[in-house]
Parts: sequence; C-alpha cells; structure tokens
Amino acid sequence: MEADVLIVGAGIIGLAAAYNILRINPETSVLIVDRMGDVGQGSTAKSAAGFRAELFTSTTNQMLSNTSVDFYLHIQKDEGYDLGMELVGYLILRSRDQFEGIADVANILEKKGALRIYRKAELKNLLKMNYEFDGDEEAEVLGVKNVDYGLFGIKCGYIDADKLAYYYRDRIKEMGGDFQFNTNVERIIVEPEVKLGIPREPRAWQKVRFTGVETNRGVFKARNLVIAAGGWTNQLLDPLGIDCISKPKKRQIFTFRPKTEDQRALLYTKGFNEEGILPFTFLPTGHYIRADRRDGTFWFSYSDEVRPFSTNDEPEEKYYYDNIYPIIVKYFPQLEGARVDNMWAGLYMINSVDHNPVVFKRSNMVVATGASGSGILKGDAIGRIAAALIYNEPYADLFGGEKISSNKLEVVGRSLEVEKFVF
Amino acid sequence: MEADVLIVGAGIIGLAAAYNILRINPETSVLIVDRMGDVGQGSTAKSAAGFRAELFTSTTNQMLSNTSVDFYLHIQKDEGYDLGMELVGYLILRSRDQFEGIADVANILEKKGALRIYRKAELKNLLKMNYEFDGDEEAEVLGVKNVDYGLFGIKCGYIDADKLAYYYRDRIKEMGGDFQFNTNVERIIVEPEVKLGIPREPRAWQKVRFTGVETNRGVFKARNLVIAAGGWTNQLLDPLGIDCISKPKKRQIFTFRPKTEDQRALLYTKGFNEEGILPFTFLPTGHYIRADRRDGTFWFSYSDEVRPFSTNDEPEEKYYYDNIYPIIVKYFPQLEGARVDNMWAGLYMINSVDHNPVVFKRSNMVVATGASGSGILKGDAIGRIAAALIYNEPYADLFGGEKISSNKLEVVGRSLEVEKFVF
Repeated sequence: MEADVLIVGAGIIGLAAAYNILRINPETSVLIVDRMGDVGQGSTAKSAAGFRAELFTSTTNQMLSNTSVDFYLHIQKDEGYDLGMELVGYLILRSRDQFEGIADVANILEKKGALRIYRKAELKNLLKMNYEFDGDEEAEVLGVKNVDYGLFGIKCGYIDADKLAYYYRDRIKEMGGDFQFNTNVERIIVEPEVKLGIPREPRAWQKVRFTGVETNRGVFKARNLVIAAGGWTNQLLDPLGIDCISKPKKRQIFTFRPKTEDQRALLYTKGFNEEGILPFTFLPTGHYIRADRRDGTFWFSYSDEVRPFSTNDEPEEKYYYDNIYPIIVKYFPQLEGARVDNMWAGLYMINSVDHNPVVFKRSNMVVATGASGSGILKGDAIGRIAAALIYNEPYADLFGGEKISSNKLEVVGRSLEVEKFVF
Repeated sequence: MEADVLIVGAGIIGLAAAYNILRINPETSVLIVDRMGDVGQGSTAKSAAGFRAELFTSTTNQMLSNTSVDFYLHIQKDEGYDLGMELVGYLILRSRDQFEGIADVANILEKKGALRIYRKAELKNLLKMNYEFDGDEEAEVLGVKNVDYGLFGIKCGYIDADKLAYYYRDRIKEMGGDFQFNTNVERIIVEPEVKLGIPREPRAWQKVRFTGVETNRGVFKARNLVIAAGGWTNQLLDPLGIDCISKPKKRQIFTFRPKTEDQRALLYTKGFNEEGILPFTFLPTGHYIRADRRDGTFWFSYSDEVRPFSTNDEPEEKYYYDNIYPIIVKYFPQLEGARVDNMWAGLYMINSVDHNPVVFKRSNMVVATGASGSGILKGDAIGRIAAALIYNEPYADLFGGEKISSNKLEVVGRSLEVEKFVF
C-alpha cells in the first residue's frame, strides 16, 4: 500500500495541503499521519487563532492572509459551515515612536479600507485603560510604553481552530483521503532513485527520493511526501541535510474569566465591533489579549524575543505572573488580581529571515513550515502552494483566482520583503 | 577581569575578527577562547584551504574573496611571511550542460582576466584523463558526466591554513590580545541590561545583554562577544532563540601518495601553472582533487548534498571507497588502486539561503558564521565586518580600500544573490 502523497502532520498546514491536493485531483490517494489522536491537536489547537487580512507589510504575506481569510469566510458564509469566526477586529495599540515606524503602511492600509487609525483622544472614549506612564518608574522598568495610536484592523478577528480542522478533515475524508492517527514519525526514508542492490545505499553520488516514513506503528510508503510537522519539521529534515530556515519557540496562552463588574465591562467593551466585545488587542509591549465571546474569557499571551528554540511546549504558570500579569495590569488596572484559570502552550515555527512562510520542494518531498505564528490565517494559501508543488505546477491558484509562483516561498535565493507587522 | 571583547573560536573567522578589532583600536582588550590547544585546530585545520578570487557569481562573495585573497597575498609578498600560498589555479571541469548554466558569468570573468575557458580539445593536450563516457553504463550509474569545458581560475590555489592561523595568532599577541585554550564554551550568559535584583532575571520583558560565557574552566565575562564557533555556532545560539540560518555538514579529506609513474605524472601535470602541478581540480560530479606540491600527495574530497546536519566530524574510510574512489578512477584511470594514506574531516557551516557568509549583531553580540566552506578564503573580509559591528561602524573597510555595509550579511531581511559557483 503506497499512497500517492503522504502528509506528515494533521495541523492546519498539513490539512490544507491534503484538501487542496484532493481538490485539484480527487484521484490522488492521500494519507495523513499525525502523532495525536485527531486533526489539529498540536500547535493548531494551542494557537490564539487570530486572523487578519491585509494587516501585513510584506505583500506576499498580505496575499496569503487575504485569500486564506476570504476562503474561511466563504466556508462560514456561503457553505454555512460554522468555523467560529468572530470578526471582532484587531486593535494594535502603539506608542508614537512605534507608530512612526509603520505610519506609511498604516496610511496606505487605511486608504484601502483595511484599517482605521484611532488617535488617543478617540480611543479614550472607547476603551478604559491607562494611556500615559510618564514619570511611572515601574512602568519604565517593565518596558511599558504610552498608548498614542490604535490601528484597528477591520477584516480581523479569531477563528475556532478546532472547527477549521474538522472542516478540513471532513472534506478530506469525503474526497477519499485517509488518516493514520497516534502515529509518530521518527524518520523520513531516503532511497536511491535507481536501486543498485549494493550495500550502504543510497551512496552519496546517487540521486535520492524520499519514499516514506518510519513511525512507531511501522513504515508507511508513498510516492510523494509533504512535511507539515510544525515545530518538529526541522528535526525531521536535519538528518537529510535540508534547512527549512525555521525553528520553534514556545508560545503560551493563559485564560481568565472576569470576576468583577469592571473586568466584565472590559471584556464586553462596546464601540469597536457589532459583537460588543473587546477586539483582539495588541499592547505596545508585545503582549496581547483575546476576549473570547462565546466562552466569556480573556486570553493573555506574549510574543517574547529572547526565548530558546525548543520543542518544549509545556505551559509554565510562573511565566504568566513573571512576564504577563505585571504588564497587562499596568495598562488595565481593572485586571488587578487576575489569576490563571487555564493555560496551554504551542509552538511558533519562526522564520527569522523575513517572517513569511517557507514552502519548497526537494526531489519528491514538499516542506511547508515557517509560518511564524500565522499558520492558521495563511493556511489555505500555504496548502494551495504545497499542492501546486506536488503537481509540479509553476503557479498556485489562491482562493479568489489570484496566482502565486509556487517557488515564491523557496529557501534558496530567498528575497522576500521582511514582515514588519509582527505583534 | 572583564574583556572588552571575548571571541568564541580561534579558527580563521575568530582570528580575523580579533586581528581587525585590535588593528582598528589596539587599546581594546581582546580575549579569544577555544576548546583546542592552539589556534586554527578545528575545521580550519581540516579544510582543503583552497582559495579563489573572483570565482563567485554573487558580487558580495566576489568582494569578500577578492579582498581577503589580496590581503593574504600581501602578507606573503609584502610582509614576507610565508603562508604557504600556492597559486596553482582552480580547474573547474564541466559538462556541456553544466557549463551552459554558468556560461554568462564565465564569459564575463574571462573578459575580466579572472579565468580562462578551456575547450575539451585544449584540455586533452594538457591533462590525461577520460573525457567521454557515452555508452559507459557504470559511469552513468555513478553520475559521471562528460568533461567538455575547463574553467581555469587564475588567482586561485591553496594556502597553508596553519600558517595563516599562526600569522594571525602572532599579530594578535603582539597587539596585546589574549588566548585561553582548552576551554570549551558551554553557554552564552544572558543578563538584563538593567539588573533589578528580582528572581528569574532576565524576565521576558527585560532588554538583555550577552555578558560572557560559561566554560569547563569557569566563567569569562566581557563587554562584547563575537561568536565564531564554526559548526558549533547554532548550538550556542539556539538557547538564545537567535537563528544564524547556518547548519554544519561533515566534509572529509583523504590523501594518497602516488605510487606509480602515471600517478606521479598526473600529480605533476605541466602546462597549467608555473609550479608544474595539477591545479586544484573540480570534477563535474562535485568531487575535487588538490595536488599538494610540498607534500607530494593527492587530496580527495567530495561536497555531497544529502548529508545530515551534524557536528560529527569523524572521518570514515569507507566513505572514500564508497563515494570517492569509484568516481575519481573513472576520470583518472591512472589512480586505479589508490588507497587512503591519511584522512580527516571538518565541518562546513552551510547557509542554505544564498551561500554567502552570515554576520550580524544582536545587542552586544556579533555572530560570524555560514561561510559554507569558504571561511578561510573570505576570512579577512568577514573579520573586518565583525570588527566594524563591534565598533558600531556602518561600513567595514575591506583590504584595498573598498567599503561594505556592516549589515550586508545580516539575517533579517536578507536579500543576497544566491551563489551558483558551489563546487
């Protein structure tokens, strides 16, 4: 039993690749293996699952995010399949200095109708928080900056990552795709293109193919591979000497259910969106808050810089009290006393070169990774590019009809705009 | 005792950085630590130490190599310090197909006087080897291609890596630089810029500095660091979450002393250079041969693609018989029976994006790596860029007066011409 395409990883990237491979040609036999018991249980499930269309400075990232978000909206609106998408908006709070670095792009995006720029005076009428910290020594020590601007991203919000994964799973199954869960891929099998029957094949001078994977449940063979193993991708590729220029960092989410009137009032902040809820809010410090409408909870997280590359994805409660709470409460004193109700962690697969995703093909193997924390919101586009590479198509058709070169996200000779909207 | 600059690694890159830091300002206190007992004993000593000026397709690589080779020639000629440089030339043998891919650049370089293009008919008069393999099934299996062209690089040859390292060591000592050998760096120390005296510093929101290293011989502190640890650089940086987009691959050298008249005749091939010796010769397969004039030996090696990223640098005799000998002897039947006299292995630190070196600064730490096997021949230029970054200079002065932006080899937003002359 040799599949046409074996996909390592049933996270959003692997699912979107499988879905698009089958969409283009339902005759293709597709097998997805994952170490978890169902789809989207790795970093996909651990994500804050925010989405933003347009709100990138890299035109490539803009294209990937716009078309993917449009595809998800299409599923939710036109197909009537609930993905739990909440268009609550992104509210990116910035100090004057920070704003100046991105003012050009922000003004262009405002003209395009993708965002609205709020000045401090307007914000103050809408959102109860501390805006100024001049003379506050503790704030200075904590790196807390003034809030002078708010960039409000309109086609932005969050999605239910589980529901999106289940959508893909069900469509993939309908089209005949297979899943093999609880299956941990230990090694990618390398074989010579032409077997000679000599010892120690493949020799270094033999052309190779990647013919399957060794797992805890035996060997699975395939004519083509897609490696979409998220934070574990580089570990799988290192033995092959293939660099995906991406490495994993832990990202943690801590949730808190409001206990006081003031806290509930913050959660249900009016004036930004129809839902009457606090938008997905990014502080000048790199901290962010998601107000979950259905659950009625705050989600807190922080994209810190100095953090080891590692596949350790255990959440640490101490991290919240050391690194998140003191800053959040500076901006929102009403959160005083907010303790952790729940927590989890996943991995960002960070491409340090330009923060655009990384998708490329070597021999019969496609690698899709490096989404740097925005794998879900660019997932559909990444999956289409991976599928185009599987079929050796020079261009991928993105949702809505736009085309992108299948080699646009290649490692070798990479020259993409560096993404400046990293929150 | 806190040095102004602590350099991790006494290979060519670390030495060139130290030398240039002291050359620019001899008042700077410089300490170089290395796990070996003397300078240049890691991959520097294990290198084939070939050098080529101009023979790159990336204009950045051209600049780095030209100025570095000129600096070494200056030492040897003007300072009268023997670096064992032998200008025997590079002979890059190519099939018609291979040549067509680089014909444009080759023609430009020929017009510049940097190389001479030999056609097969001319080569046949100079070099006794097999040129055609049509109908040879074994050759086809081995990936052996016809030899149709020879690109002869003029300002090319090899250098004595030990002598170059000793040159740098002696100049560094004269200028007051210190060495700490037999010292294995285990960890880079991260401290907050402003210490608060709270537990678990640095917290994720604190700005950090890299204040020294932990080693098997204790802690060494410094105001600035240069990480030039070759194939071990990424291991040192991973705990800091800093990606140098370079990973190590083993490269092995096997030597053979000619035993027959025909073998000696090949070693002392006339007509290419004044030395009357076989040039540094690159076969169409990725194998290469260095004829060592002083030692009277052949050095054989192979830059294979599919090889794990790993710091394993043990040579494997079997590798020669499996992967080198069968190909070499196809081209040069006179090497029939050539057995291994000596062997060793070192690490190439491969930047898969563009095969240009990687030099960048984070806080007070400079990283210099990713030379992808040409660290020696670009070492002087890389050292000058590292020194410029230490002094926060926007440009580095290369030997001969040319300037290069100190951020040219930065990881973030990287957009360099991909190197096509990878032999």
